[in-house]
Amino acid sequence: MDQSVPPGNLKLTLRQVSEIVGGTVEGQPDLFLERLTDLSACDPDGLAFAEHERYLDSLNRLPAALLASDSVPTRGIPTIRVEKPREAFLKLLVRASLQESKAPPGIHPTAIISPSARVHPGASIGAFVTIGESSVVENGAILFDHVSIGPSCKVGENSILKSFVCLVTHTTLGKNCLIHPSAVLGADGFGFFWNGSFHQKIPQLGRIEVGDNVEIGALTAIDRAMVGITKIGSGCKIDNLVQVGHNVSLGENVVLAAAVSIGGSTSIGDRCILGGATDVSDHVTLVNDVRVGGGSGVPTSLKAPGDYFGYPAKPVAEGRRNFVLQGKLSEMNQRILDLERKIEAMQKDQG
Amino acid sequence: MDQSVPPGNLKLTLRQVSEIVGGTVEGQPDLFLERLTDLSACDPDGLAFAEHERYLDSLNRLPAALLASDSVPTRGIPTIRVEKPREAFLKLLVRASLQESKAPPGIHPTAIISPSARVHPGASIGAFVTIGESSVVENGAILFDHVSIGPSCKVGENSILKSFVCLVTHTTLGKNCLIHPSAVLGADGFGFFWNGSFHQKIPQLGRIEVGDNVEIGALTAIDRAMVGITKIGSGCKIDNLVQVGHNVSLGENVVLAAAVSIGGSTSIGDRCILGGATDVSDHVTLVNDVRVGGGSGVPTSLKAPGDYFGYPAKPVAEGRRNFVLQGKLSEMNQRILDLERKIEAMQKDQG
Amino acid sequence: MDQSVPPGNLKLTLRQVSEIVGGTVEGQPDLFLERLTDLSACDPDGLAFAEHERYLDSLNRLPAALLASDSVPTRGIPTIRVEKPREAFLKLLVRASLQESKAPPGIHPTAIISPSARVHPGASIGAFVTIGESSVVENGAILFDHVSIGPSCKVGENSILKSFVCLVTHTTLGKNCLIHPSAVLGADGFGFFWNGSFHQKIPQLGRIEVGDNVEIGALTAIDRAMVGITKIGSGCKIDNLVQVGHNVSLGENVVLAAAVSIGGSTSIGDRCILGGATDVSDHVTLVNDVRVGGGSGVPTSLKAPGDYFGYPAKPVAEGRRNFVLQGKLSEMNQRILDLERKIEAMQKDQG
Repeated sequence: MDQSVPPGNLKLTLRQVSEIVGGTVEGQPDLFLERLTDLSACDPDGLAFAEHERYLDSLNRLPAALLASDSVPTRGIPTIRVEKPREAFLKLLVRASLQESKAPPGIHPTAIISPSARVHPGASIGAFVTIGESSVVENGAILFDHVSIGPSCKVGENSILKSFVCLVTHTTLGKNCLIHPSAVLGADGFGFFWNGSFHQKIPQLGRIEVGDNVEIGALTAIDRAMVGITKIGSGCKIDNLVQVGHNVSLGENVVLAAAVSIGGSTSIGDRCILGGATDVSDHVTLVNDVRVGGGSGVPTSLKAPGDYFGYPAKPVAEGRRNFVLQGKLSEMNQRILDLERKIEAMQKDQG
Repeated sequence: MDQSVPPGNLKLTLRQVSEIVGGTVEGQPDLFLERLTDLSACDPDGLAFAEHERYLDSLNRLPAALLASDSVPTRGIPTIRVEKPREAFLKLLVRASLQESKAPPGIHPTAIISPSARVHPGASIGAFVTIGESSVVENGAILFDHVSIGPSCKVGENSILKSFVCLVTHTTLGKNCLIHPSAVLGADGFGFFWNGSFHQKIPQLGRIEVGDNVEIGALTAIDRAMVGITKIGSGCKIDNLVQVGHNVSLGENVVLAAAVSIGGSTSIGDRCILGGATDVSDHVTLVNDVRVGGGSGVPTSLKAPGDYFGYPAKPVAEGRRNFVLQGKLSEMNQRILDLERKIEAMQKDQG
Repeated sequence: MDQSVPPGNLKLTLRQVSEIVGGTVEGQPDLFLERLTDLSACDPDGLAFAEHERYLDSLNRLPAALLASDSVPTRGIPTIRVEKPREAFLKLLVRASLQESKAPPGIHPTAIISPSARVHPGASIGAFVTIGESSVVENGAILFDHVSIGPSCKVGENSILKSFVCLVTHTTLGKNCLIHPSAVLGADGFGFFWNGSFHQKIPQLGRIEVGDNVEIGALTAIDRAMVGITKIGSGCKIDNLVQVGHNVSLGENVVLAAAVSIGGSTSIGDRCILGGATDVSDHVTLVNDVRVGGGSGVPTSLKAPGDYFGYPAKPVAEGRRNFVLQGKLSEMNQRILDLERKIEAMQKDQG
């Protein structure tokens, strides 16, 4: 294989693609399209989508063909006309992703499975996997190489654990989850008691419950609680390098972008979205449908749905004004100085 | 095993518990308590502790029994009266944690150990562990599956390394340490020298010394120095996703919460506590007993013990005022504008 | 081996060292020097370098010998005089680093290599390594134990992958790269489409291209794009716990310090340097030769080369003033209050 060109992931003619997405062809229907591409990394053998004509202005080279709506002039580039080009492209992406080879069911001979664990024959267990006491792996689940499952865990149907994923202990995953490499679920929550001479460890004996259709990014940590449950609701999507402290509760369909950090015992409502590198303090509550922009700090509870931003997080319009002014503090300081001088001068005049 | 209920970790009667913690029983002494629980994730078969009556107000369901002091009305819930309910609960947690099955001594047949390494027969070495040249594992140490120990390392007595822990090289751990999954100790410090055309690597040949009773969180990195030592004092407790740069020195009993980042060659005194996501610059010094609130930035040395907060970190009262005002900058700006208008009007009047 | 003393990494006499670095000896030429050390962790058997005499003032103990220029009084400590002591020391460090034992070529019997993968006989493949379909490992490459290479990847000549490195899929590394433990290259970019009831995954089918001479830190994540390429230019140096989002492009010789986070589709020019814990938003562009101080936030494109700092990042002088003022907001607020009171008093006087 030549690694210098990206792999073909479409390999269809313009006409074949138009049939799949339900569009009409402008151009030679037999034109062969090697792969899906986008306009930023434009591939001359690829099919891209264009939502606005202006995206074509700065291209160094053109794609072989475009997906576009009727309202977008495509300048003679072969085009499949569809109502919603982004969704048509997504359909093609999903189709292409199914072609990536999938592990067959079965247990790799190097895997080490506790006699008390139960692995469904329809699951796929990769090389150097370990599965601990009383753990369960359900039908269709795929454990890549070097996955480590401790005792008393469950991997639900069709869930996929990539290499080096660690379910430490007492962690259950629902169905159709996707956990990226080196995510760690179930390490001890961070709890200590200063006894006057040293920090005494508070044992962490709780568990983690992850719902269905959850995605968890590479190198993300979700901690086990002292007692009780750290809960990740169904449909949550968590990016890389995220910290979820002990006893945290995430509702359903919550989105946490990369490098977010959630303090212990915090509760995040359904459909909340936290932008990258946002910190949320411990023991606070975000109600449903709170969205916080990236780089924010949330020191206290947010009790109304809506958009927030800033450090500390405020309703988004105010938060953006504050952020702009943080970048103008020296100017503000100068204005205060000017006022002080003027007042002093006026006071002298009056005196 | 049914994963839908948490495991029993107490399995004692009210009377038996009262004998362990030295308390007196209110209620049926034969009441069986399945497990330890807390009020936030309240389990109807569990024993919780209550430090204030108000914590009982918002519960959807009640625990089977409570630990409480004489001054807390427990509303008819079976109760064990003790002077310090939190400490009594901690005692029960420690007892329960000892029941979690522990790896027996011995070396798993898949482990690969250098002929020049020394592993004490009382140590437990898990599956797929590798131990490099001249490294030492002392009595009672437990290496979980997939631990990687490079050359010239030491794991002290009774220290526990969870799955995927990596001691890269020249890293020594004292006794009774606990290192969580995918922590990396001993990767190269980040040192380069711009030679006019590229960044030339400065080889990192130093080592890491970790004291006794240290806990290090999942996915935390502690770097090896160029020469000399990166030092983690005895009793330090470090959370997940923390970065400790090369040549850093942590005193004894230092606490670093999640996502803290410590720049190279920085020195942190005994008993310092840094809240989550706090950044400390390189080459600064924090004296003993400095505590910095979460989300702070420490660009310069802190030369007096005490509490600090903010970005940049200031003594805590000032830091909190600054933080509140960061959220009111648009209001402050408006007040300056108002003053400017008033002054202008006054100057016109005078003119 | 006694772990309580650092290993000897020099083991030369003063005269031998002076010949290597091209200097002149002051003191007994036969003095034996055990190892390289630095003044902060001063080793009495070691050779350190001193760029200023004042660095000798606060030492508890002295090194055996010094590298210093003619202009630095070394107070009778045996000294090798050289023009550029730092560069001479670097030369000795490089020499010492070559003595660290290197893995011999060959494939460890426990490694599992796809029949369609190609591994050069001059490569070294460690224990428990997995290499997927159609992947290539070139001559002189070293894969430490527990490395996981997925399908369609390439490891270029003489590149080194430390333990637990994961190339998930479609990731190519150039020559002479060094990837530290538990770095994850090629996990899915974070892309979802809210379809009104849940976040639908946007498949990530792109690839990662890493140039030559790139160093990537422990626990760093670099994501695969939807389509197209996430690109890390030759000579880039990336520290620990860094997040590089999907479709990001780093130019050549870019430096990212620890805990930096780069949002998706952002483009960073040649020779840019981002200090620790700096966040860069998605879809922004930094031109060549932009340097951003640690702890900064970059929400928008930086279109001129130069030094920046702050949250939000501003040209460095302004950014530093803003940062100082962030720590004086309560004082600024007090000054505004004072002005308000004075104006009110003056208005009363006039009224």
